[in-house]
Amino acid sequence: MLNTATSGISSNIVYVLLIIGGFITLFSMYYKTSPMLPCQRQPSYSVKNTAYSMANKPILLLWFWPENDRFDFKDCKTFFNIDGCNLTDNRTLYSEADAVLIFHRAINHNASNLPPSPRPSFQKWIWFHVESPTNTQKVPGIENLFNETLNYRQDADIPVHWKLSKKTRDDFALPKKERMICWIVSNNDSHTGTKMMYSYYRELVKHIKVDVFGKVFGSFLKYKDYFSTIASCKFYLSFENSVDKDYITEKLNGPLAAGTVPVVLGPSRQNYESFIPGDSFIHVNDFPEAKALADFLLQLDKNDEAYMRYFNWRQYYSARPHLIKQNRKFLQAICYACDHVGRHREYRVVPDIYKWYFG
Amino acid sequence: MLNTATSGISSNIVYVLLIIGGFITLFSMYYKTSPMLPCQRQPSYSVKNTAYSMANKPILLLWFWPENDRFDFKDCKTFFNIDGCNLTDNRTLYSEADAVLIFHRAINHNASNLPPSPRPSFQKWIWFHVESPTNTQKVPGIENLFNETLNYRQDADIPVHWKLSKKTRDDFALPKKERMICWIVSNNDSHTGTKMMYSYYRELVKHIKVDVFGKVFGSFLKYKDYFSTIASCKFYLSFENSVDKDYITEKLNGPLAAGTVPVVLGPSRQNYESFIPGDSFIHVNDFPEAKALADFLLQLDKNDEAYMRYFNWRQYYSARPHLIKQNRKFLQAICYACDHVGRHREYRVVPDIYKWYFG
Repeated sequence: MLNTATSGISSNIVYVLLIIGGFITLFSMYYKTSPMLPCQRQPSYSVKNTAYSMANKPILLLWFWPENDRFDFKDCKTFFNIDGCNLTDNRTLYSEADAVLIFHRAINHNASNLPPSPRPSFQKWIWFHVESPTNTQKVPGIENLFNETLNYRQDADIPVHWKLSKKTRDDFALPKKERMICWIVSNNDSHTGTKMMYSYYRELVKHIKVDVFGKVFGSFLKYKDYFSTIASCKFYLSFENSVDKDYITEKLNGPLAAGTVPVVLGPSRQNYESFIPGDSFIHVNDFPEAKALADFLLQLDKNDEAYMRYFNWRQYYSARPHLIKQNRKFLQAICYACDHVGRHREYRVVPDIYKWYFG
Repeated sequence: MLNTATSGISSNIVYVLLIIGGFITLFSMYYKTSPMLPCQRQPSYSVKNTAYSMANKPILLLWFWPENDRFDFKDCKTFFNIDGCNLTDNRTLYSEADAVLIFHRAINHNASNLPPSPRPSFQKWIWFHVESPTNTQKVPGIENLFNETLNYRQDADIPVHWKLSKKTRDDFALPKKERMICWIVSNNDSHTGTKMMYSYYRELVKHIKVDVFGKVFGSFLKYKDYFSTIASCKFYLSFENSVDKDYITEKLNGPLAAGTVPVVLGPSRQNYESFIPGDSFIHVNDFPEAKALADFLLQLDKNDEAYMRYFNWRQYYSARPHLIKQNRKFLQAICYACDHVGRHREYRVVPDIYKWYFG
């Protein structure tokens, strides 16, 4: 009896010790995983459930829907033949996700809507931002959280930029031209602070007629008329809303895809020439003032041979129309992230996202 | 008869005109293709023979064998599972090649050993260079010839850098340690002008013993003993021969793959931390002088727990041995170029290679 009692007491003690030990272990596990740091600084001890990743494809969790515009995840396969990851917006998969795509503009000012702690040690956070530095608001305290960057810049980990592709078939014919110069102003541009493109436009229209489309100018264009409208113009104003390296948007791809000569305002001619042939566009910086540009365009209007030289490059390369519908605005970027995550599982950290972006 | 004679004469005239016309066409084709300019500036009219590219894989022509060390082109499949292009060193395929890989150090001073004119308009030239800017000699006149860059820098078009990979199995055990600090000095390092690493070494050995291997020091190491020698040391001096952004070579991968703590000298700690975890290495800049570093290493030698913390990251990532045999030194870079060429057929030009590289 004494023996049994003793062993009863001692097994109780063992239970209590086990429970306390368990709590201490859990507690220390919790505290070892400091919140929101890139994975090298934050070893945690979660074991990845392999059931979900049976196809051996990594999980990419889209933390925010950019501008709340949803698309079908199958669109990555449909539009870009990309199928390298399990793309999801299901936050309950957070602890399983190999990578989390975080849209910068959706992060609130105190960064309280970022993913929760503990952050799994195998997980990469991707900074998803496609605005220029000039039009970017810094969120304090998120500098050192990210492992990779998704951006239009050529030196991003995941560069997202429309590109000319090698021509595969002979299908270019100059569209019928009904207008001289056109300009489509997007809603975003009317919100941004920079007035550079407006002031250049105002100077230009003193000397030449420009057909302007866009809400601000009272003449709203439907998506379906976007490319055909640009195609009907001899020239198109591809005016960026800020002057930043590599910030050359679909405002340039529009006329290239439509068969129109772009007149560009943005970074230097040299920067443009790393994306498109030097003889495919007219740069406002090529002229001392707006009047000289207007005179040049009026001359080109009378000289078909000189005008057609701006289409020489189409013998070798072609431009594809970009997706313009609102809910597909960010589709390419998200699909590219999916493709990248499927190919790159190696270690990578961006020590300071702002230092990289603002230089 | 008259009729026949007339038609005989006129058909002769037609033949002569055809022949003259043919010569004029050929002549004008020749002159329209000005030599050695990136493809946007140099439209030519060659038609690509499709017979060779039946498998729809682009041809990548290796113009020079780097350091004359040849390998088997099948090695790209064997070592890196890369099979995205038709890799060749057959210069008779030049006019067919989609891309030409040009090893910078093999270009002679007057650039006369570059590919001949005419340069096909669809062809991309890739600048292949893996030395740091500090140890690079400029060849005059080649600034504007290239379409893409292959380099160790993260912002190259084809970045070639060893990387930590996500750990897949639990196979790390600390190797048996027989030496305190080791350093292997390669032949190349003894040729370079920079003396920084030697002067730091000379200061360090005043306070702590370092086992040095390498021709310059009379103790030559065989390839087969490279990783095992590094593994036998507690610390390894990963001293780069210049301080340049992203220039972090296999000198660091050696100890990481072998299971040894690297002591690094090169770019900033922050730059290292974009490639490897911050707690995986010791940076000489962490200490005010060599003596302080020596004292710290001697302390670590006595404190196993503190020493083992430098291996924590191995729970999540692993380092793979790099290829060290002389004739495989450039294999990875060339295979990566092959992979890139197979995936990227879009337009791209580097306006000024030196501006990009020397900043």
